[in-house]
Amino acid sequence: MNQNNKQLIEKKLSNESIYNGKIIDVNVYDVELPNGETSKREVVYHQGAVGIIAVHDGYMYFVKQYRIATEEVLLEIPAGKIEPEDDAEKTAFKELKEETGLVAEDVRKLHEFYVSPGFSNEKIHLFEAKGLSLDQQQLDEDEFLELEKIELSQLEEKLINGAFRDAKTVIGVQHVLYSNDYK
Amino acid sequence: MNQNNKQLIEKKLSNESIYNGKIIDVNVYDVELPNGETSKREVVYHQGAVGIIAVHDGYMYFVKQYRIATEEVLLEIPAGKIEPEDDAEKTAFKELKEETGLVAEDVRKLHEFYVSPGFSNEKIHLFEAKGLSLDQQQLDEDEFLELEKIELSQLEEKLINGAFRDAKTVIGVQHVLYSNDYK
Repeated sequence: MNQNNKQLIEKKLSNESIYNGKIIDVNVYDVELPNGETSKREVVYHQGAVGIIAVHDGYMYFVKQYRIATEEVLLEIPAGKIEPEDDAEKTAFKELKEETGLVAEDVRKLHEFYVSPGFSNEKIHLFEAKGLSLDQQQLDEDEFLELEKIELSQLEEKLINGAFRDAKTVIGVQHVLYSNDYK
Repeated sequence: MNQNNKQLIEKKLSNESIYNGKIIDVNVYDVELPNGETSKREVVYHQGAVGIIAVHDGYMYFVKQYRIATEEVLLEIPAGKIEPEDDAEKTAFKELKEETGLVAEDVRKLHEFYVSPGFSNEKIHLFEAKGLSLDQQQLDEDEFLELEKIELSQLEEKLINGAFRDAKTVIGVQHVLYSNDYK
């Protein structure tokens, strides 16, 4: 870390483990602020996930999925958690195949980003899938989602109208709309 | 909700409150899946936040801030939680002024998006600030951050090189780079 960031850094003084769950762990820290005062910080740990930009034959591929946290069906790019035994790239190939039936010859990392660094370390690795061919969807037993493909010519209007309602999907759609790779 | 989404929806069977904190609440639900099986779902509730795209005199405005969740100093667009007594728009004016010293004549909603709908209901309201003039930064007592402004001509290279490492900032930078409003 840059030397001149010292005046920004918080030091952990104590750590309380609140919850160790299936996909998240929650800890609360007492921290010392740069001015010597103390404060509490709540942190949600998550193993990270991938999202995949998949454009094939003039369509971008999405999945519709119910999210209990938001109590809505959302239209998202294919995505999935990184399991401890996998890396991000392997997860991208696997989730794309499972959720959409698309088989990629290659996946290329486009961005890595934290989704909510104010309280969580969850990072999304966003890939572009290349050399796609269409096979069969292979969902996990406890996974319920529907494939939806959208013509590239429809993406901009849908983005403006708020059809894409989560961060990774907005980033993926903006990339497809505006990068030279899809023109 | 659309009638034909019924086959995707999970029903809450029971609810355990795990934690009620300063910025997050954590609940665990038993749910009934569309196939009648049951599963557990972990949910982190958060009141939501704003992010602000601020471009003034050929520069886009950012803040550098230490994030204990990621143990890094990140370069983010100005942002802040929505307090119960405020709405998103009021929060956008206020956070922009506090964090950067920029005073906006107007703020316009560009997107609303969930940051991580797989486990959290946190929504970011992303605004564009208009009619900007520069006054003094006014940080909260427990807020430690540094202003950084970046020339528009430098944004694309920095985006490609991974200088922007959180979702709202990637979305904001993509928009400034590629929408016609900033050309």
